[in-house]
Amino acid sequence: MKVSIKGSGSYIPPLITPNEAFNSHAFLQENGQVFEQENGVIIEKFKAITGIENRRYAPDHLNTSDLGFLAAQDAITDANIDPETIDYIIFGHNFGDVSAPGAQGDTLPSLASRVKHLLRIKNPSCVAYDLLFGCPGWIEGVIHAQAFMKAGMAKRCLVIGGETLSRVLDPHDRDSMIYADGAGATILDIEDPQGGSILSHASETHSFEEAHFLFFGCSYKQDAPKNEKYIKMYGRKIYEFAVTHVPIAMQKCLDASGHNIGDLKKIFIHQANEKMDAAIVKRFYRQYKTPVPDGIMPMNIHEFGNSSVATVPTLFDMVKRGQLEGHMIEKGDVVMFASVGAGMNINAFVYEV
Amino acid sequence: MKVSIKGSGSYIPPLITPNEAFNSHAFLQENGQVFEQENGVIIEKFKAITGIENRRYAPDHLNTSDLGFLAAQDAITDANIDPETIDYIIFGHNFGDVSAPGAQGDTLPSLASRVKHLLRIKNPSCVAYDLLFGCPGWIEGVIHAQAFMKAGMAKRCLVIGGETLSRVLDPHDRDSMIYADGAGATILDIEDPQGGSILSHASETHSFEEAHFLFFGCSYKQDAPKNEKYIKMYGRKIYEFAVTHVPIAMQKCLDASGHNIGDLKKIFIHQANEKMDAAIVKRFYRQYKTPVPDGIMPMNIHEFGNSSVATVPTLFDMVKRGQLEGHMIEKGDVVMFASVGAGMNINAFVYEV
Repeated sequence: MKVSIKGSGSYIPPLITPNEAFNSHAFLQENGQVFEQENGVIIEKFKAITGIENRRYAPDHLNTSDLGFLAAQDAITDANIDPETIDYIIFGHNFGDVSAPGAQGDTLPSLASRVKHLLRIKNPSCVAYDLLFGCPGWIEGVIHAQAFMKAGMAKRCLVIGGETLSRVLDPHDRDSMIYADGAGATILDIEDPQGGSILSHASETHSFEEAHFLFFGCSYKQDAPKNEKYIKMYGRKIYEFAVTHVPIAMQKCLDASGHNIGDLKKIFIHQANEKMDAAIVKRFYRQYKTPVPDGIMPMNIHEFGNSSVATVPTLFDMVKRGQLEGHMIEKGDVVMFASVGAGMNINAFVYEV
Repeated sequence: MKVSIKGSGSYIPPLITPNEAFNSHAFLQENGQVFEQENGVIIEKFKAITGIENRRYAPDHLNTSDLGFLAAQDAITDANIDPETIDYIIFGHNFGDVSAPGAQGDTLPSLASRVKHLLRIKNPSCVAYDLLFGCPGWIEGVIHAQAFMKAGMAKRCLVIGGETLSRVLDPHDRDSMIYADGAGATILDIEDPQGGSILSHASETHSFEEAHFLFFGCSYKQDAPKNEKYIKMYGRKIYEFAVTHVPIAMQKCLDASGHNIGDLKKIFIHQANEKMDAAIVKRFYRQYKTPVPDGIMPMNIHEFGNSSVATVPTLFDMVKRGQLEGHMIEKGDVVMFASVGAGMNINAFVYEV
């Protein structure tokens, strides 16, 4: 049985926020103290580590489910399918529909149900649910879809990753510069004789020590209301965790695919932080005593920031459409998708295009 | 391949809230108008329809993930397994950890990750994720677990349903009397030669007209802060939807199991509202031109209220342990689990004990 990606789509929000927009922010340390450095220095250092120059924010009138719907529409058009033939709609996100900064996340009904409603799908056998798995949620959704197909429960699935991190960021936290909004969607299918094939996958949850490396916490501004929570992270711990564990999971996944390291044409990795991603890929190749090939790791973090679950499907969609300079994929190419995020979760799959 | 329920557990919160606790509530209509009837009349009518006399609320220091952890511990003890052998932890809920009424729901990290952390499981191959599927989330988690097992991706899964609806209820809404807190958990296994077997399942999402029958909305008190949201429902529409569509899905599920209506020993149905549940079961039997057998539908809503995802696994656990008077199940019995809720989602599975 071949599970192939029949179509892909994205919604990249139109609002471009450059690094300079943070010049006026009152950044604070975790304990509420001001930094010795000026914002210009902080922002330069941030750019050097993460690679981020701009990020996209969704317009106020669109929520995460709307972003997911727009990406889904795009993927359905790309796949050229009748939406009524979809067996599952799986929506990976973290916070639900957050209509404004500091607002309660709305997860009733599920965002997948909202997308199904907006797509005007009538078929009740199209089952819609949300999957919370941190940033690796979209890849995990693909793994779920594959499981349903292998179990004989589905032939066609729509897997969406969407997020509006701009609405859960603490403006006093330097890390707020990382976060972005966006959505990506993919149609997976088992009935396409011309289609590609998922060859292997890996999935892990590390929560013994790591469960709260990413968490929902208070503002660094000490007199901010204690009941307003924001996305928070222990960046150094995440970095060390990721460069240690992600390459091992990637190796397991590649080895299970039956391919060797020289066959890999692209790695679509979660756009978390350019330095971290480069370090992960370097260690991954080091495990095979192989130098990192030029152009193996397409990146769009410079312009789009880290949109959590949305980074991998939007990156793949851009490359597939030839919209990322210097990167393309062709029929028969062997590529890997990999992610890491809150949980802490790690996952990957190897795909023959 | 046999997927069996190897163990089950519950956490029933200790705080009993009787109907009389609502005597002093200022109930309002959707438009903010007061009711003509006195609270005593409203409460009597409520009891006559829903069957609810008492409901349980979680103590302040416990969140939904804690309730889920306590139920999971109970299920692991009952199954007598090493937690390190669990391949998946699937947590069905709706709102995340809501630490106080009106607070933002906390879903970072996922509640499943928190449970895995609290269970002190080290094995990274134990994958933990949250599933948002409305009240039918626990049954849907069982269906996911079965899919992973059929696909060769898992041998043992922990499926949890937990919720603290007491923290998302509008005190000015009569419907607030329905909601309760609780958690149930189940260990599913494919390696138990003495175990039972899931024979069939059904799963549906009706969102064309129905997506927002249950939603997150403002208080009926017109001058309440507009940014504080509560669980809200169109009860009449849900009732009509449920009695129309749930019996049909149940019939599909039973017919797919290979059993006939006379074989069914118990129906574990989501404890939403006694009148509605009775009407669903009556229509289900009417489809087979068969009278409803006495004692087919165990209920604990009278004492526990509607705890969303938690009602079905806690009800099953009670009956399995012989804790619900007049109800028991024995090896070889054929039983059905069924649920309906936000999405609008419907699901069911038939199980041979």
